[in-house]
Amino acid sequence: MSAQGDQVIGPDGKPISKKALKKQQKDAEKAAKKAEYKKQNTQEGAEQEVQTEDQSAGRYGNLPLNQSQERLDRRLYKVNELQPSISGQKIWVRGRLHTCRSKGKQCFFVIRQQKWTVQVFAMQNENISKQMIKFVSSVSAESIIDVEGTVQKTDQKIQSCTQQDVELSLSQIWVVSASEPRLPLLIEDASRPEGEGELATVNQDTRLDNRILDLRTTTSQSIFRLEAGVCRLFRDYLTEKGFVEIHTPKIISAASEGGANVFEVTYFKTKAYMAQSPQLYKQMAICAEFDKVFTVGAVFRAEDSNTHRHLTEFVGLDLEMAFNYHYHEVLEVIGEMFVNIFKGLQQNYAEEISLVGKQFPAEPFKFLEPSLVLNYKDGVEMLKKAGVEMEDDEDLSTPNEKLLGRLVKAKYDTDFFILDKFPLAVRPFYTMPDPHDNKWSNSYDMFMRGEEILSGAQRIHDPEFLTKRAKEHGVDIEHIKGYIDSFRYGAPPHAGGGIGLERVTMLYLGLDNIRKTSLFPRDPKRLTP
Amino acid sequence: MSAQGDQVIGPDGKPISKKALKKQQKDAEKAAKKAEYKKQNTQEGAEQEVQTEDQSAGRYGNLPLNQSQERLDRRLYKVNELQPSISGQKIWVRGRLHTCRSKGKQCFFVIRQQKWTVQVFAMQNENISKQMIKFVSSVSAESIIDVEGTVQKTDQKIQSCTQQDVELSLSQIWVVSASEPRLPLLIEDASRPEGEGELATVNQDTRLDNRILDLRTTTSQSIFRLEAGVCRLFRDYLTEKGFVEIHTPKIISAASEGGANVFEVTYFKTKAYMAQSPQLYKQMAICAEFDKVFTVGAVFRAEDSNTHRHLTEFVGLDLEMAFNYHYHEVLEVIGEMFVNIFKGLQQNYAEEISLVGKQFPAEPFKFLEPSLVLNYKDGVEMLKKAGVEMEDDEDLSTPNEKLLGRLVKAKYDTDFFILDKFPLAVRPFYTMPDPHDNKWSNSYDMFMRGEEILSGAQRIHDPEFLTKRAKEHGVDIEHIKGYIDSFRYGAPPHAGGGIGLERVTMLYLGLDNIRKTSLFPRDPKRLTP
Repeated sequence: MSAQGDQVIGPDGKPISKKALKKQQKDAEKAAKKAEYKKQNTQEGAEQEVQTEDQSAGRYGNLPLNQSQERLDRRLYKVNELQPSISGQKIWVRGRLHTCRSKGKQCFFVIRQQKWTVQVFAMQNENISKQMIKFVSSVSAESIIDVEGTVQKTDQKIQSCTQQDVELSLSQIWVVSASEPRLPLLIEDASRPEGEGELATVNQDTRLDNRILDLRTTTSQSIFRLEAGVCRLFRDYLTEKGFVEIHTPKIISAASEGGANVFEVTYFKTKAYMAQSPQLYKQMAICAEFDKVFTVGAVFRAEDSNTHRHLTEFVGLDLEMAFNYHYHEVLEVIGEMFVNIFKGLQQNYAEEISLVGKQFPAEPFKFLEPSLVLNYKDGVEMLKKAGVEMEDDEDLSTPNEKLLGRLVKAKYDTDFFILDKFPLAVRPFYTMPDPHDNKWSNSYDMFMRGEEILSGAQRIHDPEFLTKRAKEHGVDIEHIKGYIDSFRYGAPPHAGGGIGLERVTMLYLGLDNIRKTSLFPRDPKRLTP
Repeated sequence: MSAQGDQVIGPDGKPISKKALKKQQKDAEKAAKKAEYKKQNTQEGAEQEVQTEDQSAGRYGNLPLNQSQERLDRRLYKVNELQPSISGQKIWVRGRLHTCRSKGKQCFFVIRQQKWTVQVFAMQNENISKQMIKFVSSVSAESIIDVEGTVQKTDQKIQSCTQQDVELSLSQIWVVSASEPRLPLLIEDASRPEGEGELATVNQDTRLDNRILDLRTTTSQSIFRLEAGVCRLFRDYLTEKGFVEIHTPKIISAASEGGANVFEVTYFKTKAYMAQSPQLYKQMAICAEFDKVFTVGAVFRAEDSNTHRHLTEFVGLDLEMAFNYHYHEVLEVIGEMFVNIFKGLQQNYAEEISLVGKQFPAEPFKFLEPSLVLNYKDGVEMLKKAGVEMEDDEDLSTPNEKLLGRLVKAKYDTDFFILDKFPLAVRPFYTMPDPHDNKWSNSYDMFMRGEEILSGAQRIHDPEFLTKRAKEHGVDIEHIKGYIDSFRYGAPPHAGGGIGLERVTMLYLGLDNIRKTSLFPRDPKRLTP
């Protein structure tokens, strides 16, 4: 057991001061050396401290490397299955050694399985030898262990564990996979809310440098389970509405959407590019008669933006839909879809939301049903009334987006809204102009807590008009020939949008950095791990 | 209307000969010129041949470009909703002009909506003018049209349409989006089974050059709906089993899995690579305590392989799972998952399977439950008995894989099986050797119709052993430091596999080329459309 994992959480479940931590650092080093020495002086395979007087021999030790030697017929309980109802049963459980503290003849340790934890205790007696207690104390935190023990109802609730009404009385302990004794970060530190006195927390870069450990916190476990839920709710809603899932190519022959911010790839003897979005291809699928499509996949942006909300690679949730008469048919489907996602998260991930909130507190996410749709002009009007000086058809700066989000929240009590009819000049070439005034366009953004999470529009479905607009935007027509040609054989009016998955997760949970919602984030300065 | 679309299918719904087609080619050119002339000589916007004597004025013409001018409160019926039960009703429907033939005062045309078709007829009378009939005949095939008509029960079944018991009696027709009169390929030709007499079919490259049209065939529509089903069944099964969906980075800092066959990317001022698989990252997710994960996403292979089954970019369905005692726990989950996919396809996509089979006939896909698991050694034995000369621990060549598939089919009557315990030497460095004889390994491939669709194994979860094996494979340890380090803090035994989505779809349907199951395929010679 690592002294680090050992003494950071006191017996009362409360963490201890920086000063004490320094001392532990030294102890940890000693323990590490000791462990290293021990490792070198024991054999590979089933290692066990056989001593003549050890009455526990055969009930603890290191298991040999699992190479699927045999298929044991032994049930392993999940930590969250350990309940008073099975009190008295002797069971096996596998998990990580979360923390351990020993004191003379007894020792307590906690087994962690994702977000669940249970306490185990061992006391030196006729079955448990001094050597066995010593062995338990020598296991490094984060090691994976198999523990056999008897489920016992506790008199007092164990506040530091998720399983508060039971603990295990140890009978066997075997190490499945040992952790190195020195951890580059402590799970407890990485789990701690910031600003709690002098206690250590972990900064964003250290977290990412040691992402494997950072991801083990209850917070990270909850974030990525909820993110998987966003994906599923997105897909299930659209599938139910008759959308077909497609997959669009990521390697493209030309920088299709303007040319800047695109990664270049060496493609055999030629050059290619990484798609900045599935935009052109999902539209081509509409021209190919798919009517309603969605796609979930990586998109790439070679923007040298080092902000809290930009990644160079992220997951795009894209959809595109032919409509009958008016692009609001699509806007409404997207609005309903978001409401469905928000509700689904509330219903299915309440525990995850609450667990993340313990470390990173945030106001619960509010939304209206149906969603609020604001006209761009009216949004600008609200900003002007709040003292912002800007033109009616000027693009929204990031600070103004945030301010608008606050104004909308104050007025309508919603963290989600749709801003419709953006100025044409600030939108991509394929955006359909407003039919009455081409200063405006049939385009919209959607916002969560004042940050853009979807951009969408009705697209131009006439090849000649599209060509004209592309030229006006300085797009090389030759580069998008395949795209433009796809509108030559009959194309329905259509609209759609693209969503950034990591942003939705970040903003729904009220997190401060998009790197917390990307498993292995990529930004201009980070390509590892 | 294009003469091409017009005369290829005769009034009896049967196609006509190549000789006749040549004549039509000429006619088509004439028609095209005529249409071009007409186009240049009419105004944009709501165009209509207003003549003083036209009693149909206002009931046909070209609609202006839809810019969402107004939101009509008009229901558009789906073609498959047109049934005898609504006979007598006057309804609107939007679809593509599939084919049209006019003869003197009457005209018949077919509206297509994805895989559904319905016939419309118009006869010159007090409501339908000569000019209106002429207009209908002038609409190009593949144009999108709004048609108002009365649903009428037919005396005889209309063999050439999916809606065989009803047709529409025309009252209005408006072109929503006109197709160019000349099509680079005809939907009928692209839909025709090969080898039916002298009739035109379309080769694979022409299809891909004109993918937008090729995708409109009933066959393509069915293929991609089924492919979406494969994805959904994969995800739903694993989600239900407690797997968490993750997203792994596609841009990586080093060519991680050996170095060859990897695309290089310019990443700001440095170089990066496109991930050949999510392999290392899904394992890292396991080390990060996710227990069971899956991911669906693009993978990239810079292999200069120009075969029927290789793409440079394809969709990987990957999964990875910690197990308790033996990697067969995972192998069995994967086997059950495939059975679940095959059953789900049978149940939910029977119509699509049958429609694809009309153009590309194939034996129905057979499988066993539980799946057949063969030992590699026994597979080799079967091959040897069939006359193949090879070593016991030699890799399987593609022809031998195919032969083994046929032998297994003959003996066990299954198109799906699992080949277990491959020779260690032919597997990646991270493969766990067999515990008893390291000539073999805890690895497996899965096959459909004699072609590999999944490769998987138990992975080495000990960092020192992994380092040793990587070195033996000539992998630069520095390049995979983050990966190896992820095993240093306790790693559970785990196994998994990677599936090629396009291969599963191709082989399930018995298709001849993987380009048919990739929406916009990428190979060494194709980067467009």
